[in-house]
Amino acid sequence: MVRVGIVGASGYTAIESIRWLLRHPRVEITAATSRQGDGSAIENMHPELTDRLQLKVEDLSPRQIADRCDVAFSCLPHGASAHNVMELLDAGCRVVDLSADYRLSTPELYSKWYGEKHPDPGRLGSTPYGLPELFESQLPEAKLIANPGCYPTSAILPLAPLLKNDLIHANHIVVDSKSGVSGAGRTPKLGNLYAECNESISAYSVGNHRHQPEIIDILARYSGVTPELVFTPHLTPMERGILSTIYVRPKGNVSANQIRECISNAYAPCPFVRSVVHLPATRFVAHTNYCDIAVRENDGWVILISTIDNLVKGASGAAVQNLNYMFGFEPTLGLIP
Amino acid sequence: MVRVGIVGASGYTAIESIRWLLRHPRVEITAATSRQGDGSAIENMHPELTDRLQLKVEDLSPRQIADRCDVAFSCLPHGASAHNVMELLDAGCRVVDLSADYRLSTPELYSKWYGEKHPDPGRLGSTPYGLPELFESQLPEAKLIANPGCYPTSAILPLAPLLKNDLIHANHIVVDSKSGVSGAGRTPKLGNLYAECNESISAYSVGNHRHQPEIIDILARYSGVTPELVFTPHLTPMERGILSTIYVRPKGNVSANQIRECISNAYAPCPFVRSVVHLPATRFVAHTNYCDIAVRENDGWVILISTIDNLVKGASGAAVQNLNYMFGFEPTLGLIP
Amino acid sequence: MVRVGIVGASGYTAIESIRWLLRHPRVEITAATSRQGDGSAIENMHPELTDRLQLKVEDLSPRQIADRCDVAFSCLPHGASAHNVMELLDAGCRVVDLSADYRLSTPELYSKWYGEKHPDPGRLGSTPYGLPELFESQLPEAKLIANPGCYPTSAILPLAPLLKNDLIHANHIVVDSKSGVSGAGRTPKLGNLYAECNESISAYSVGNHRHQPEIIDILARYSGVTPELVFTPHLTPMERGILSTIYVRPKGNVSANQIRECISNAYAPCPFVRSVVHLPATRFVAHTNYCDIAVRENDGWVILISTIDNLVKGASGAAVQNLNYMFGFEPTLGLIP
Amino acid sequence: MVRVGIVGASGYTAIESIRWLLRHPRVEITAATSRQGDGSAIENMHPELTDRLQLKVEDLSPRQIADRCDVAFSCLPHGASAHNVMELLDAGCRVVDLSADYRLSTPELYSKWYGEKHPDPGRLGSTPYGLPELFESQLPEAKLIANPGCYPTSAILPLAPLLKNDLIHANHIVVDSKSGVSGAGRTPKLGNLYAECNESISAYSVGNHRHQPEIIDILARYSGVTPELVFTPHLTPMERGILSTIYVRPKGNVSANQIRECISNAYAPCPFVRSVVHLPATRFVAHTNYCDIAVRENDGWVILISTIDNLVKGASGAAVQNLNYMFGFEPTLGLIP
Repeated sequence: MVRVGIVGASGYTAIESIRWLLRHPRVEITAATSRQGDGSAIENMHPELTDRLQLKVEDLSPRQIADRCDVAFSCLPHGASAHNVMELLDAGCRVVDLSADYRLSTPELYSKWYGEKHPDPGRLGSTPYGLPELFESQLPEAKLIANPGCYPTSAILPLAPLLKNDLIHANHIVVDSKSGVSGAGRTPKLGNLYAECNESISAYSVGNHRHQPEIIDILARYSGVTPELVFTPHLTPMERGILSTIYVRPKGNVSANQIRECISNAYAPCPFVRSVVHLPATRFVAHTNYCDIAVRENDGWVILISTIDNLVKGASGAAVQNLNYMFGFEPTLGLIP
Repeated sequence: MVRVGIVGASGYTAIESIRWLLRHPRVEITAATSRQGDGSAIENMHPELTDRLQLKVEDLSPRQIADRCDVAFSCLPHGASAHNVMELLDAGCRVVDLSADYRLSTPELYSKWYGEKHPDPGRLGSTPYGLPELFESQLPEAKLIANPGCYPTSAILPLAPLLKNDLIHANHIVVDSKSGVSGAGRTPKLGNLYAECNESISAYSVGNHRHQPEIIDILARYSGVTPELVFTPHLTPMERGILSTIYVRPKGNVSANQIRECISNAYAPCPFVRSVVHLPATRFVAHTNYCDIAVRENDGWVILISTIDNLVKGASGAAVQNLNYMFGFEPTLGLIP
Repeated sequence: MVRVGIVGASGYTAIESIRWLLRHPRVEITAATSRQGDGSAIENMHPELTDRLQLKVEDLSPRQIADRCDVAFSCLPHGASAHNVMELLDAGCRVVDLSADYRLSTPELYSKWYGEKHPDPGRLGSTPYGLPELFESQLPEAKLIANPGCYPTSAILPLAPLLKNDLIHANHIVVDSKSGVSGAGRTPKLGNLYAECNESISAYSVGNHRHQPEIIDILARYSGVTPELVFTPHLTPMERGILSTIYVRPKGNVSANQIRECISNAYAPCPFVRSVVHLPATRFVAHTNYCDIAVRENDGWVILISTIDNLVKGASGAAVQNLNYMFGFEPTLGLIP
Repeated sequence: MVRVGIVGASGYTAIESIRWLLRHPRVEITAATSRQGDGSAIENMHPELTDRLQLKVEDLSPRQIADRCDVAFSCLPHGASAHNVMELLDAGCRVVDLSADYRLSTPELYSKWYGEKHPDPGRLGSTPYGLPELFESQLPEAKLIANPGCYPTSAILPLAPLLKNDLIHANHIVVDSKSGVSGAGRTPKLGNLYAECNESISAYSVGNHRHQPEIIDILARYSGVTPELVFTPHLTPMERGILSTIYVRPKGNVSANQIRECISNAYAPCPFVRSVVHLPATRFVAHTNYCDIAVRENDGWVILISTIDNLVKGASGAAVQNLNYMFGFEPTLGLIP
């Protein structure tokens, strides 16, 4: 059994990771940490775990975690996560980092968008980006995997094969994304209150969301083409799910059908990407590790519509998928919805 | 007192119209009709009207309505509405038509998008489109006003002054709109059930929604420029509200600030359009007749974000606003939120 | 014009009070205070007020408020409110207190349930409880009115006439109440986050909610009978609304019809209490000052079902209604939905 | 592999059953039927099943189903279900009936509450009621199991051991239940539309819901005591979940602690009933087969609070649990959340 530690056990990606790991036949959860961890049972923090997981939430050091775990899921905020990850790796514990700390390719890009110097700049660029559909070969040997952002997953998967195959104009891409509120995290803030989010949709971080450079950077890393794209996230009155509506201009006389086939072929071997005929709804992927992608056209534009569950394929499900690659399991193990 | 009849009293735009008319100091509701109308009290159909409106729901002919009313709000489905409107006008009753029947400029466009011959083709093109912010001068004398569609209101208001003033490229416009479920009407359909819409966002009618030609047609009528634009509507898990995120390419070196000022100046005299600094949320305009518009920029694109309450500025509030123009009242009468 | 001040302008009852006062033809809002008030425009705090209310949010002393206002709506938390109210009254400003501070009849009851000594014990018991339907005669002369709690309003209105007329057993009353999340206030707390409340209903404060003694105390004050009743509040995934399902045992051979008539007769003169035939839904009273009450029977029990909008009849609407009594206006002025 | 057929594949309990059966290691789904079944792929009906289940939806006769299946889940409406079940049993196919047809003990009770003669009266009373926690011994040999109603599951589990052990007065029981909208089924009806259910809670079928006699009948069957109880269901703005708040009067000097222990002991061997310390929320059991029960007291009443997911423990999860007993599998097989 692979021993897994959950570092930063209080948030939504942590509890979602635990739910999936409990179903996984080859792992056991051997540590759960939190700065508030006082050794009391995890069901005090997450009552839904009553009778399901006997574990204490503790305030453990990276070395203590490494003693108990083969791999850690770091669910800490960016910045805090890198500090932890460095020590975990030094202590011999492999890591799937669910924060943004190791996703970007250069320390410059990181400090531009995150406003601080990266504590572990040497690993940027060489750390695999944990989208197995694009970077599978880098995962089995990895000591550290940067788990992708939720919005980037929904935008990169449809766009990557189109850029790689030179089917669309790289400088006319609009990504309009809609996310459920769990994406904003579990720290109490006015903007995330029920009576603020309910019955309301709004755009936020227009023109300055940190996932925009992540999308561009990873698409460039994969396809060799640096796209110009505009990304607008929206807070939607639902708990889970991301739907991205992506507007692209096909090159020359590339048809919507060719674009559909390109995507369909690219992901034919990938169990968690479905090229679908119906119009996707986040409901159809809720509580699953799927990314659904559909293609439509309208007056010279091709419209890609992709959906994921932001907490699963956009976070914890992807982390388990990455764990499967790290430890040589079937990619789908424990991830059947 | 202006006597108002509600034709087709069972739907959401009908009940919303009644709510606003009850607050209006210069009107009284003198008829409510429905094919199911059997003369029983309207509170049987709409329990919230208990003790608020003494009125029977009846199956009245247009002539009977005209006998009792100075103006009718036609809340019938398209097609049915035009047949009714023709007879109401013949019988001397003025009409605000909340259906789509008199919005488009030509019978050809109507039959292309609505799949049937228009029963009253002569009035297409000459019937004023009831956006007072753009067509105010045509309203006071009108016997018939075509009340605008909900999505079109949210898209036309931000775009109209920009096209008129030649600030943006007319052939690179993306309108990504998100609507609450009441926009889909009150007829029971699987897709509108709570357990289908809840916790799910989806795109629909991609590339073939009837509001796309309406947006283009009215923008052309107002500005003289026929834009190419792609419009994608989304069903959002909320009851009311539309947020449109509109991506445009400024011409030459037009700045986002110039675009903001253009919109701000265009609507300075208009009490129901607010050029706002904050990022709009549908919550901020819910149950009001406002359209909020904000301007942002991102990597060569300018992003216009507009919000309305689809049942108010997108339907019944606009209808009352049009009534005010028809009868010479202050435009805001009865419409203070 | 009556000059009204909003003390504690950031919360839900404050913004809801402002919305109603803006519609009221005989008042103007002349002050809005907050400890965070730095003199910036109120639309920075509440963007929906853009173009609707020109007012600064300031950190004013009670004396400064009294200089500008004839009456203050105190929207402060309990404890803090009483301290403020004392000074406002001393400075000659009348007060509608939306906190719980002056509702209970004795300092002992207050300290038992609120865990601290009451700062102004002399006014307890003599301050009118602002349910005009029960205590109308005490309101016109009042310098201070204790605005009722939201749950108590929904429970007291149906029960009061039944106890007064001795139709039910006073020692077998079950009040099972369901409230929207806005009732929990606007301070960010984990339990009020969207992703915690959505898709979940839960009971809370079972056996120890402070509204239980308020219900009992006021029913006793009005009817002369101190009931034994058990009250259980539930957090419901909606923003507004309270529905109380109240189980009572009729005395002797009192029928459900007699109980219905008793309620119907008691509130016949009251414009905001509707004895309804249909089963109430919170939707039917949302954004109105109504309390709907229906009566049903089931196997020896009579079931009273009452609904209010917790922010309107349960808070700010009631406050405006009380203001109307204080200043001799029609009770319904400004309160037509 | 046990071959399972889904009879009536279009509704919510059908799709939920399929989801759970897909995770079950010892079953395969070999038929899906519907009167609309035209042999097209099931993903046309339920797009979330794309790539997950290769199956056609067909309009099969009971005999055809029996040829392909060892057991059928009958997800048909009451009345229709019994007719089908009779033929399935005759053809040698075992059945878990998710309808209400075989739950009540006598044909008289059935015709009183369902308004029609039972087509298969001989099986009433002898068909096991599929709550394994109470009737485990009857399940392994059963050809037919009556799967319990959702509300009854949430009410019977907390009350059964208390009545059996004579700890509470049987004639003073109030069951106030709150259910998500999926409980109302998937047939389009006005009352189940998003824009009707959202932001609204209401009581329905007060005094005449068919689950009231089911609760009483099964409690009597299990405990030998026929309780008098009043049951009120409420439609809650959420998709899944039932919370029942149950008010009981303890006998003599029975304490809340004794009641808690009685429940705790009764269900100690039962993997899906959790006697919990925290206050239950439907969120904590969503998408699981758990029933959580907590005990509180308030002024002479003991309050039992129970939660289930109405589609899992209240329907499809229970059906899989019953299948496990029928075929000699571990009770929890395939049901780990």
